[in-house]
Amino acid sequence: MSSFTEESAVTVLGLGPMGRSLAAAFLAAGLPTTVWNRTPGRDRELVERGAVSAATAEEAVAASGLTVVCVVNYDAADAVLRRDAVTAALKGRTVVNLTADTPDRARSTAAWAAEHGVRYLDGAIMTPTTTIGTPDAVFIHSGPRELLDEHRTVLEALGGVHTHLGEDIGRAAAYDVALLDIFWTAMAGYAHALSVARAEGITARELAPFAQGIAAILPPIFEETAGEMDGGTYSGEGNPITSAASSMAHIVQTSEAHGIDAAVMRAAEGWARRAIGSGHGADGFIRIAEILGRTGNETPTG
Amino acid sequence: MSSFTEESAVTVLGLGPMGRSLAAAFLAAGLPTTVWNRTPGRDRELVERGAVSAATAEEAVAASGLTVVCVVNYDAADAVLRRDAVTAALKGRTVVNLTADTPDRARSTAAWAAEHGVRYLDGAIMTPTTTIGTPDAVFIHSGPRELLDEHRTVLEALGGVHTHLGEDIGRAAAYDVALLDIFWTAMAGYAHALSVARAEGITARELAPFAQGIAAILPPIFEETAGEMDGGTYSGEGNPITSAASSMAHIVQTSEAHGIDAAVMRAAEGWARRAIGSGHGADGFIRIAEILGRTGNETPTG
Repeated sequence: MSSFTEESAVTVLGLGPMGRSLAAAFLAAGLPTTVWNRTPGRDRELVERGAVSAATAEEAVAASGLTVVCVVNYDAADAVLRRDAVTAALKGRTVVNLTADTPDRARSTAAWAAEHGVRYLDGAIMTPTTTIGTPDAVFIHSGPRELLDEHRTVLEALGGVHTHLGEDIGRAAAYDVALLDIFWTAMAGYAHALSVARAEGITARELAPFAQGIAAILPPIFEETAGEMDGGTYSGEGNPITSAASSMAHIVQTSEAHGIDAAVMRAAEGWARRAIGSGHGADGFIRIAEILGRTGNETPTG
Repeated sequence: MSSFTEESAVTVLGLGPMGRSLAAAFLAAGLPTTVWNRTPGRDRELVERGAVSAATAEEAVAASGLTVVCVVNYDAADAVLRRDAVTAALKGRTVVNLTADTPDRARSTAAWAAEHGVRYLDGAIMTPTTTIGTPDAVFIHSGPRELLDEHRTVLEALGGVHTHLGEDIGRAAAYDVALLDIFWTAMAGYAHALSVARAEGITARELAPFAQGIAAILPPIFEETAGEMDGGTYSGEGNPITSAASSMAHIVQTSEAHGIDAAVMRAAEGWARRAIGSGHGADGFIRIAEILGRTGNETPTG
């Protein structure tokens, strides 16, 4: 803590559940913390712990060399940052935008920042609010590495690991989108499985330990099939796409026999059937990643 | 091994990748093992290790008190078991059907077995072929518990844990369907994420360590939200369905901006929007499991 100086002052814009967790972690680390939220009244607990409540966003950003933004999306972030008074106050200061949105929105905000002399780093938070301030938190950043290095001491008050993914400002958002894709698709599968299980007289608590076992087999499969994807060869030995499609059909049948919407699995089965129809039925499942694009072989644009 | 007697003879019907792994594990445990496959020529390696190759399915089942079936689905299983000569040979013997299909098919096969004096236990294998014969294998069974107890010593040659889920013969298949639902939905999400990542210039190997981190946060979420599902209260604090829907929209936008099919995430987002439209936007995501059914509150049928 002895390295913290006045330069360690930090402002948090956005006091939803994640913003409040970020501000609480800065306060717990003893950092001078200013907070602001569009809708007032969200900062009471933080003020009790020592936060300064700013009356306006321009006053908030003027209080610190570093402003961390965490709002619902870039429409909300832009509505705050791109107001003239706020933009003027940010000139020469650093914004670390931990708001989640698309890579294109991150690139657009970086262009705006460059135009107005705002130092800009994009980022994303890959773990739940409860991890903030603990070693389990995972942050990813992209943009100028020197900005991350300059503010690393302050940002590390948020706990966990801060990884710089590259200078391309859209890269953190691209990782974020891809990882949330995995997360929310898996959660949709879990919600659907719980619904089917209930219809079969199985409680969620009965299914949960086995569901946890399924989650546990994913990491090595993710690693192995990532190698297949990069190498362009998809071993279906032991588990070809035809076998996956057969399982998927059983899931759809069981679900719909109970009147339970199987739209997600129907869409996934459609991908498997498309791969089979393209002559890839004997390949491993991740071959599907190649057939989803416009040309089946996307050119990197990042 | 000293407890193995002539009663420990076992027959394996179906020599796909999983069937071959099962037979190999029985052989490795020193059990007299007879094998048969509809398409010949799959048993050479097994015969080299000591398996007896049967010329017909009826000859195969007559060789052992216990027959383990593992074929592609119940259409394939029925095509073998329900031939008169095979049915006659099975009378008074035990079939453990580890073939994956729907709970209704398991119930239908159990009814056939009862009609013909065949002792019948249903089951499913929840782990990949590579786990067979190791402590990592996971088997689930349903039907008469005494049948599992009687053959437990032989079945334990397959390694891992054998759990009896209940007397309802369809229960193992119901668990299997629900767990494969989670697995294949998650894999579809991973395939899609790899496709989007590639379009953003991120290799699969770059994404994989973070994807593994996503898999690692699932087990505690599965456990916590299972309690919500059974209790009927869905805390959206920290992560309401509205926030999930926002993330899902970013994923769809990013995917489709690259011309990548987002059908699975579009279907999942549709569920989230339906929950929001029903007034549950502030609830936790697993609330979705309640709205997928015909009535939104399925009656257990199992």
